[in-house]
Amino acid sequence: MMTLTRRYRFAASHRLNTDALTPEQNARLYGKCNNPFGHGHDYVLDVTVEGAPGASGQIVQRETLDQCVSQQVLRHLDHRNLNCDVPELHGKVATTENLALAIEKMLKASWTLPAKLAHVRISETDRNAFLLETR
Amino acid sequence: MMTLTRRYRFAASHRLNTDALTPEQNARLYGKCNNPFGHGHDYVLDVTVEGAPGASGQIVQRETLDQCVSQQVLRHLDHRNLNCDVPELHGKVATTENLALAIEKMLKASWTLPAKLAHVRISETDRNAFLLETR
Amino acid sequence: MMTLTRRYRFAASHRLNTDALTPEQNARLYGKCNNPFGHGHDYVLDVTVEGAPGASGQIVQRETLDQCVSQQVLRHLDHRNLNCDVPELHGKVATTENLALAIEKMLKASWTLPAKLAHVRISETDRNAFLLETR
Amino acid sequence: MMTLTRRYRFAASHRLNTDALTPEQNARLYGKCNNPFGHGHDYVLDVTVEGAPGASGQIVQRETLDQCVSQQVLRHLDHRNLNCDVPELHGKVATTENLALAIEKMLKASWTLPAKLAHVRISETDRNAFLLETR
Amino acid sequence: MMTLTRRYRFAASHRLNTDALTPEQNARLYGKCNNPFGHGHDYVLDVTVEGAPGASGQIVQRETLDQCVSQQVLRHLDHRNLNCDVPELHGKVATTENLALAIEKMLKASWTLPAKLAHVRISETDRNAFLLETR
Amino acid sequence: MMTLTRRYRFAASHRLNTDALTPEQNARLYGKCNNPFGHGHDYVLDVTVEGAPGASGQIVQRETLDQCVSQQVLRHLDHRNLNCDVPELHGKVATTENLALAIEKMLKASWTLPAKLAHVRISETDRNAFLLETR
Repeated sequence: MMTLTRRYRFAASHRLNTDALTPEQNARLYGKCNNPFGHGHDYVLDVTVEGAPGASGQIVQRETLDQCVSQQVLRHLDHRNLNCDVPELHGKVATTENLALAIEKMLKASWTLPAKLAHVRISETDRNAFLLETR
Repeated sequence: MMTLTRRYRFAASHRLNTDALTPEQNARLYGKCNNPFGHGHDYVLDVTVEGAPGASGQIVQRETLDQCVSQQVLRHLDHRNLNCDVPELHGKVATTENLALAIEKMLKASWTLPAKLAHVRISETDRNAFLLETR
Repeated sequence: MMTLTRRYRFAASHRLNTDALTPEQNARLYGKCNNPFGHGHDYVLDVTVEGAPGASGQIVQRETLDQCVSQQVLRHLDHRNLNCDVPELHGKVATTENLALAIEKMLKASWTLPAKLAHVRISETDRNAFLLETR
Repeated sequence: MMTLTRRYRFAASHRLNTDALTPEQNARLYGKCNNPFGHGHDYVLDVTVEGAPGASGQIVQRETLDQCVSQQVLRHLDHRNLNCDVPELHGKVATTENLALAIEKMLKASWTLPAKLAHVRISETDRNAFLLETR
Repeated sequence: MMTLTRRYRFAASHRLNTDALTPEQNARLYGKCNNPFGHGHDYVLDVTVEGAPGASGQIVQRETLDQCVSQQVLRHLDHRNLNCDVPELHGKVATTENLALAIEKMLKASWTLPAKLAHVRISETDRNAFLLETR
Repeated sequence: MMTLTRRYRFAASHRLNTDALTPEQNARLYGKCNNPFGHGHDYVLDVTVEGAPGASGQIVQRETLDQCVSQQVLRHLDHRNLNCDVPELHGKVATTENLALAIEKMLKASWTLPAKLAHVRISETDRNAFLLETR
């Protein structure tokens, strides 16, 4: 068994805020991420699939994986506002943790590749990375 | 003569749009950067100063430069919306080009360091960098 | 379950040498790392915690994790000499392997975060990385 | 238990093509990687070994590991054509998946280090990485 | 005046060899880069243009620049063999220096952008970069 | 005219301190860099040479440049203490500014390459870079 990790990038804005708390509580909990007009990031998304290289010598064709991620994920997130433009995050706080869960859902909703989706990793800045096992 | 370049980071959101054009023209000109709810980036800001190392062996003290950039620039841009939160960009399109000019203005407004501000470089993604000579 | 990895940096000096060996044996075993006056590195420390995003949508609050790592680890290691300034390494060779074990100990000594410490990764140069499972 | 990952680099050329398919099928399957005269990459190879730091405070001596990887792998791959110069890949498609398997074989053929070979990771571009468990 | 540098990538193979020398002389001069079956790299190409941000707030539209570089340069170099597939290098040694000159020629052959081409920078590995002033 | 920049790395320790000041003044001026037992960095050194590619298609042979930098600079600085092991820094504060001047001196002392030394750039951490024009 072997894994292939392929890297994608998208730029998005978001604001951390929850209706369950008062403005003061939100400000205390989320700090500068609670800024009313939002802020943004250049997110890096690593999609890892697992399988055995078949007769073609490949776990999966690059173009097929790219098309899948582009179609299911990137065109919904790139150059978007995570709070307003992404239905999977409605009613949820737009943290990177919830974003990772949303991306897993988007990918699994119509996964038809022969290789298994092993994990999704997303980093928000050069200091933060979130890894979600999806096997 | 020698230069010191020091790297800073900030996360911000923006939207490219101008009142001088119709919505259709804006969409055509700015493409996905015209998305109504905006998007965002992890900006990388390099500030370069020029001078000769004095008796201390330093062109400038790191802490002094950091304090200056933090006070004059970063606290106004980090975790902000460039369109709504930054007075220097009001009435202007929030492109990285205009952002570089705004940062130069912010820095020069109260520059008291002995070293000269040589240039300001800002990158928006891992593919774009803007360099502004400020000497 | 999901993990969050957060990246920290510190600069330190060290010398590889053990009293159990003669100077010649030390020189042979540790090569240029045995240089009498020492040398140094810009260490990169990745701290990984594991948990489920709660109501706040976060595994752990960034500021809480940062404060913990800063208080327990960074202020003892940053701009320090690992041989002379770090009690956890007294009587041990100041290798990155032993440093990783020392950092695990420093973190676990007063770990009060709701998320579990999953692993500690430390790299010494752009070519070396050490990963220590701490679950 | 702890792992040490050490990074190596090599530059090589290759062409993806299989005798089992017609030229048209190869072109469809491998796309631009099927270009008749080939293309190339700066491969990054991460070798991970697992063990416990002994009396020397090290899982393995860096020089010993480097010599092993250099002797068994790098001198056969660096500045080479993977299709023509590498016997381990004869009769196989020169994909990075098959290259990872070949490198595992090269390393295991004469592994005499006290630490266990844990995994081999190879990246072909800044967007692709392949991880092979070798325990 | 301000510059915009935009980064592109392409993968190619090449062999350093000149008909003006004997095989022994070529081997001595170019070392492992003279390997008969060639080798390859993931080249990084930075194209820098210079101008003033106009009413749109941009020196040049990103898509226009990308299209130009893609059309004039990348489609001729990406996943190609520099010795066999690139007419601009016929009769020349396929060094990165000559490649930089060829790229300048390709870009200037039909440059119609309002911004001036300021320089072309190409790196062959993570240790080498070539900068060519084109103003 | 074209430049070639080649990247080298070395690990060293240092302490910022001057006999011209009292311990309290040194502590105030250099902050944590004044730590009595020192600290260290993974320095990155970029050496840039300028010339025209001759008949060989190269500004300079890589091996010749590497040998020169290795012989004149790296073997004196790598895995060393800048205060104790480097004669060029005796009587000077071991700042990166003074280190850049020392490296220029080391290189020019016996420069025999046909290409001109254009500049020397050294970075101490991922946030600091010093550029010294040497033409």
